Amino acid sequence: MARVIVDVMLKPEILDPQGQAIVGACQRLGFSGVSHVRQGKRFEVDVEGEVDDAKLADVRRLAETLLANPVIEDFEVHVE
Amino acid sequence: MARVIVDVMLKPEILDPQGQAIVGACQRLGFSGVSHVRQGKRFEVDVEGEVDDAKLADVRRLAETLLANPVIEDFEVHVE
Amino acid sequence: MARVIVDVMLKPEILDPQGQAIVGACQRLGFSGVSHVRQGKRFEVDVEGEVDDAKLADVRRLAETLLANPVIEDFEVHVE
Amino acid sequence: MARVIVDVMLKPEILDPQGQAIVGACQRLGFSGVSHVRQGKRFEVDVEGEVDDAKLADVRRLAETLLANPVIEDFEVHVE
Repeated sequence: MARVIVDVMLKPEILDPQGQAIVGACQRLGFSGVSHVRQGKRFEVDVEGEVDDAKLADVRRLAETLLANPVIEDFEVHVE
Repeated sequence: MARVIVDVMLKPEILDPQGQAIVGACQRLGFSGVSHVRQGKRFEVDVEGEVDDAKLADVRRLAETLLANPVIEDFEVHVE
Repeated sequence: MARVIVDVMLKPEILDPQGQAIVGACQRLGFSGVSHVRQGKRFEVDVEGEVDDAKLADVRRLAETLLANPVIEDFEVHVE
Repeated sequence: MARVIVDVMLKPEILDPQGQAIVGACQRLGFSGVSHVRQGKRFEVDVEGEVDDAKLADVRRLAETLLANPVIEDFEVHVE
């Protein structure tokens, strides 16, 4: 079994209000030096057997179909 | 400026129904070989200046306070 | 077709750090009078035909299985 | 104290892959009759004192600024 990670983040040009809420709260709590926060999703996908190019391609199709909305989000796939 | 990543996942013993929904949908869509999926959060935290041990300790405190609930979630901090 | 709403919130005794981040940001932005925020999930479930007791029971089972984790979350089902 | 609810949903024209994953899982689990699911966020905002028009306007500004991204999401505010 192998674990493939899919990180999904809003595209950079799309505002992330919840990340901004965290920056605001940081400043109030005295965590200085945090200039920007963005919140995304992280999926751990366990696949049977070894991960080869065909399986990574499958996970990429899975990410495009079920994990991310490519209109508003970018995603990255990597083996853990 | 440097980017620190905070990955937040439900603790392994806590059921993740949305990950299970994704596994169910995979099977229906013909993505075979996906045995398990867990969904978590990924935060990109941009900090000013260089990242030293003190700054990583700050981000860890931030994660414990505002990004994760240590009772039900584990988190990992790493520099991108 | 009818729409059934499933609201899923963390149980009251479980800390919600993201809700707290929003309270912190409110104070910094000058939104006074906000004492507490909790963030949950809202699902719009469209079911075919009319909603009767049997269908509501189906949606409740769906909520328990795929939408909420009953160990850490409470949910409420209502017809829109 | 009064509780104001803010429901945040992706705009109808924006695909919701996680809602689609839930529909796929429903069919596999034998929950027939579920034609469409969309997943959004629900915020419980507790405000001090009574809720009047000025306070509702404050919560609407809060929603626009910190809870929703008006480019991709719609929100609704109502008193519980």
